Amino acid sequence: MNIDINYMYEALKEAKKGFGNVTPNPYVGAIIVKNGKIIGRGAHLKYGENHAEVNAIENCSESCKDADIYVTLEPCNHYGKTPPCSERIIKEGFKRVIIGIRDYNSKVDGSGIKRLRESGIEVITDILKNECFDINRHFFHHIGKKSSYFVMKSAITLDGAISTSSGSSKWITSQKSRELVHIYRLMFDAVLVGKNTVISDNPSLTVRDPNGKKIGRTPYRVVIDEDLSLDLNYSLFSDPDRKKTIVFTTERAKEYKVKQFQDKGVNIYKVKSKDGFVDLSLVKEKLYNLNILSVLVEGGKMINTSLLKLNLIDRVHIFIAPKLVGNGNSFVGDLGIDNMNKALTFEDKDFEFLGEDILFKATPKFQ
Amino acid sequence: MNIDINYMYEALKEAKKGFGNVTPNPYVGAIIVKNGKIIGRGAHLKYGENHAEVNAIENCSESCKDADIYVTLEPCNHYGKTPPCSERIIKEGFKRVIIGIRDYNSKVDGSGIKRLRESGIEVITDILKNECFDINRHFFHHIGKKSSYFVMKSAITLDGAISTSSGSSKWITSQKSRELVHIYRLMFDAVLVGKNTVISDNPSLTVRDPNGKKIGRTPYRVVIDEDLSLDLNYSLFSDPDRKKTIVFTTERAKEYKVKQFQDKGVNIYKVKSKDGFVDLSLVKEKLYNLNILSVLVEGGKMINTSLLKLNLIDRVHIFIAPKLVGNGNSFVGDLGIDNMNKALTFEDKDFEFLGEDILFKATPKFQ
Repeated sequence: MNIDINYMYEALKEAKKGFGNVTPNPYVGAIIVKNGKIIGRGAHLKYGENHAEVNAIENCSESCKDADIYVTLEPCNHYGKTPPCSERIIKEGFKRVIIGIRDYNSKVDGSGIKRLRESGIEVITDILKNECFDINRHFFHHIGKKSSYFVMKSAITLDGAISTSSGSSKWITSQKSRELVHIYRLMFDAVLVGKNTVISDNPSLTVRDPNGKKIGRTPYRVVIDEDLSLDLNYSLFSDPDRKKTIVFTTERAKEYKVKQFQDKGVNIYKVKSKDGFVDLSLVKEKLYNLNILSVLVEGGKMINTSLLKLNLIDRVHIFIAPKLVGNGNSFVGDLGIDNMNKALTFEDKDFEFLGEDILFKATPKFQ
Repeated sequence: MNIDINYMYEALKEAKKGFGNVTPNPYVGAIIVKNGKIIGRGAHLKYGENHAEVNAIENCSESCKDADIYVTLEPCNHYGKTPPCSERIIKEGFKRVIIGIRDYNSKVDGSGIKRLRESGIEVITDILKNECFDINRHFFHHIGKKSSYFVMKSAITLDGAISTSSGSSKWITSQKSRELVHIYRLMFDAVLVGKNTVISDNPSLTVRDPNGKKIGRTPYRVVIDEDLSLDLNYSLFSDPDRKKTIVFTTERAKEYKVKQFQDKGVNIYKVKSKDGFVDLSLVKEKLYNLNILSVLVEGGKMINTSLLKLNLIDRVHIFIAPKLVGNGNSFVGDLGIDNMNKALTFEDKDFEFLGEDILFKATPKFQ
């Protein structure tokens, strides 16, 4: 059992190699083991190309007859962009298939496991199930709920501040936490911010290494600006990736300004306003229709508060740094909660230690 | 080694039986083991009475010749209120003495270990050293620094709130966290609150079980009220334990009011004011002189902020409940920190899970 877990961790490491390049597919990794030795590794690396199982088989250093294959997600059993992995596994003569989690929410839904078992292969499931679920929460969500997956990411002090009262915010969390945020940017289809974040930080929202060097593809960068008053000189509208910037605005945006943005290649969508602000429910819908299926919300107080009030956040990732500033700017504003027993609680909670910080991951329980 | 750890945990459990009754002595527990069986248990239960080692010896179900004794703190080697434990251990013919932590900071300071070794007994030290240190942080502090030990305890939401904007605060944390606070009240000589907490909660600050039944002795209850404007009807001034209430006020207190409090048995101390408020440095000094050596600060924003600004907090215990209220009242106010890189950080950090909550324990690194 312990050995199975170790190999599944290796398969999960492989799965991460697909970050940024496989949407709308899930992240999947595979490891092939024979006589106690890893003889092949593979991941689903690019949408439309080989699945992880096939890449692992094709990377094998010897025949995989009678070998074991560890795969983070149930192998497919249908013809999509590629032939079914179940058939390939059977054909190669594997002895055992060890699966992280059943693909319960898509076309596969147990049919891969069934096909393998019928062929006489031993199939073991639910090895590191939670971890294998976690890496594909966005996938299970958009497949199951037909909606984009919104994760609110915040980095806060112990007293809930994202900046001091004078606006200073560099840096709240440790190097390790900040590095993870860049991995998230690779993992998610898009990053979403509000107008205030653009004004105060002029962020590029690219994926960078600790030295600031760009690595990996740039995610879609979604900006909310109800009157399109932002200047075109901000990085998001002027850098080489500006075609991956999407601005949501309302009827209040002036037409000449819309044209200026569009002329630079920036995508502009007008949606209805709600209380003078962009209706964020419509933004979420539109992003799903654009096939932008996982969104990391890196907004400030205003965006966080609005999304939480509209029940549009599917999960929170809150990095808590063990420090105090006192009197700082909070990461959430008025949620309309008067009584402590009506506080917004969470389920499916997870705490992780990251350098000096704690990362709290959880799903809001909207009432 | 593992067995030694298990027995030391048992000794720590014993030590806790002294909570509330041994100050200014440390909390100490002992376990006696012979032929793989616990034959005696003991704690230092009351100031001036037997030490843990002697209680364990006297509770033994058989002779402790050739037995092992596990004791959370180095046995004493001097005549105080009782004869030296080292001599008693030698006299009983123990084979091994296993010690949690050396009593490095008091009169003992290694002399107990030296005496035992000289007599030919095998002495092992530093078993569960951190845990054995933790239970007596207050003791090592007041012995070493000649100052009372101030712990700031707060229960907060993820967004740093101790109440909603309308003042609702019941309950932030889980049952388990709240139970621990009552154990703290037993463990500490005193609980300290500000005037605002008295007005908003009318607390009794007694030690109670989950059903609200009073258990154990009531700690000293220290109240800060610069003009002695509080009403005498609050629990702290009118309940049967009111003689254990101490109010610190300033020259602004009216004499007739001082007399009213004193007539009821409440202790009043006038100290100099600082910026119109009670000078909390003087409060800390006075408490040390009163032999009130460990103080649990259960104040609100004002008390917490003032104590932190004056560097008077020796450790924080922050219970973080995984919930959000938005726009609530923070547990700390303006600390005069403008730049995020000047945030108040901590050392000697520890995170603990308590039911739904996280308990963050750490020592502030004042600059």
